[in-house]
Amino acid sequence: MSSTSEQRTFHDELVRHLLIFPSGVPGVWALSEVFESVLRRFDTRVRALAAEDGAERLHFPPALPRRLLERTGYLDFFPHLVGTVFSFAGSEEEARELGRRARDGESWAELQAPTDLALTPAACYPVYPMLSGVLPESGRTVEVQNHCFRNEPSGDPGRLQFFRMHEVIRLGRPETVLAWRTAWQHRSLALLGSLELDAETVQASDPFFGRAGKMLAAGQREQELKFEIVVPIATEVPTAVCSFNYHQGHFAALFGITLPDGSVAHTACLGFGLERVTLALFRRHGLDPEEWPRSVRAALDG
Amino acid sequence: MSSTSEQRTFHDELVRHLLIFPSGVPGVWALSEVFESVLRRFDTRVRALAAEDGAERLHFPPALPRRLLERTGYLDFFPHLVGTVFSFAGSEEEARELGRRARDGESWAELQAPTDLALTPAACYPVYPMLSGVLPESGRTVEVQNHCFRNEPSGDPGRLQFFRMHEVIRLGRPETVLAWRTAWQHRSLALLGSLELDAETVQASDPFFGRAGKMLAAGQREQELKFEIVVPIATEVPTAVCSFNYHQGHFAALFGITLPDGSVAHTACLGFGLERVTLALFRRHGLDPEEWPRSVRAALDG
Repeated sequence: MSSTSEQRTFHDELVRHLLIFPSGVPGVWALSEVFESVLRRFDTRVRALAAEDGAERLHFPPALPRRLLERTGYLDFFPHLVGTVFSFAGSEEEARELGRRARDGESWAELQAPTDLALTPAACYPVYPMLSGVLPESGRTVEVQNHCFRNEPSGDPGRLQFFRMHEVIRLGRPETVLAWRTAWQHRSLALLGSLELDAETVQASDPFFGRAGKMLAAGQREQELKFEIVVPIATEVPTAVCSFNYHQGHFAALFGITLPDGSVAHTACLGFGLERVTLALFRRHGLDPEEWPRSVRAALDG
Repeated sequence: MSSTSEQRTFHDELVRHLLIFPSGVPGVWALSEVFESVLRRFDTRVRALAAEDGAERLHFPPALPRRLLERTGYLDFFPHLVGTVFSFAGSEEEARELGRRARDGESWAELQAPTDLALTPAACYPVYPMLSGVLPESGRTVEVQNHCFRNEPSGDPGRLQFFRMHEVIRLGRPETVLAWRTAWQHRSLALLGSLELDAETVQASDPFFGRAGKMLAAGQREQELKFEIVVPIATEVPTAVCSFNYHQGHFAALFGITLPDGSVAHTACLGFGLERVTLALFRRHGLDPEEWPRSVRAALDG
């Protein structure tokens, strides 16, 4: 994926101010403590909001069973974004050949075989199979913060390959889930507004793959299943920092999550892209958080 | 890798008490908030000790450039532990084939190609290439906490495939680095002792691959380059929860890290396995942290 000169300028400023350290692979950085500290403070704000919902917190590694992506249709919709984990299971002779090829700059891909793991593409994916069974009458609310991976190398600082997503997931009756989504839309706009970010809600669709994907995206828009909160990051064209997805019964039917009356539950989730929010704050208020307006620093610290 | 009946019993107790949630792939779990809260509190204790050293904190995603493992010899020493990231870059027709195979339970591995990324095998690996150049006279101290991956599926709860390592890395003159290592050995024993864990130091070697690896391990022991602090986790046979590695000039020579007099710097690191320390605490003090001795809870909270 290409990047514009405005995006490259912002990227280079972040590097010059020692906020990010490029690894050599596009979209994979080390972050400074200054960057991380802003991210952590914002993350704590989201956690405090989720606590008001009584959300149950779960913690995941950055990978999940490959089988889970095979079951959920993720591979049909987003085959281009998936990262799978491969490893070596050969003989000593093959290990020597692997080492030799690596030293000589030759490909050693064919000496790798797939493991049972894939990188987590969205923070909520590993949650659904854990909740198989009958929900309480009031449903459930779960909160996670995961490292996610999407295979989209880019020079746009707003598009990392590895990034953290803070998600809240609601499971219950359709009307419960929809009312929750609306409440969080207002909460999220208020949170971002308190940080003086120019946030607005837009109808959105997922980046489904290929020609058939265009139809899926149109259907998603028509049913108003997805919207995003966008703010300017590297350019004046705003980028999504928060995404709301209403899955209807998709995940619950797959994993047997039902309401007490036996009907399939509905699910929805919202996710904040933590690096994106942090970048938007640097873009809006400058590269030194000590110099940000007192009101913004106070809002960040809750 | 197999597991003993004692290990399986401890694993099942953790599951029954809702502290861990197996994913279906051995060594890949979700963690409860109770588990994570203990881990976080221990992590904060290590961070406070590193702050006394004036350590600079850096933050990394769970992957690094594959090229870095190719350059450092990691692939020669530990080819069996490495995880590489593969992805799809094919046509719409190939995407349909991929989706069909996944649904039908056939292999879709050959439709995946290697990316430029590998999973981070040890938390300090991405640090060294960032420090190319001349160190200050007093050297540098860097601190990281990373998700690491090692391809060793096992039923032993003390051996996760994804786990977090809190590392401190010291770069400087050989005598500086060695004195630092000794100081941290005492600090680490004191920290684990304050949590009433039966911790002791042992000479150790890395799990080098194959027959040649046996010689490497012997040399590492002879030169006293590695030691570990071990405590009982799932069984009375103790497991390493903290590992100290003295690399001499290995990484510094590779990445051009020098002292002001132009000589190659030496480096050492120590890493706490955060899930292992947490498991050792549950094993030692019981599965409900509210019931732990007051002195242990106080030490955990610093």
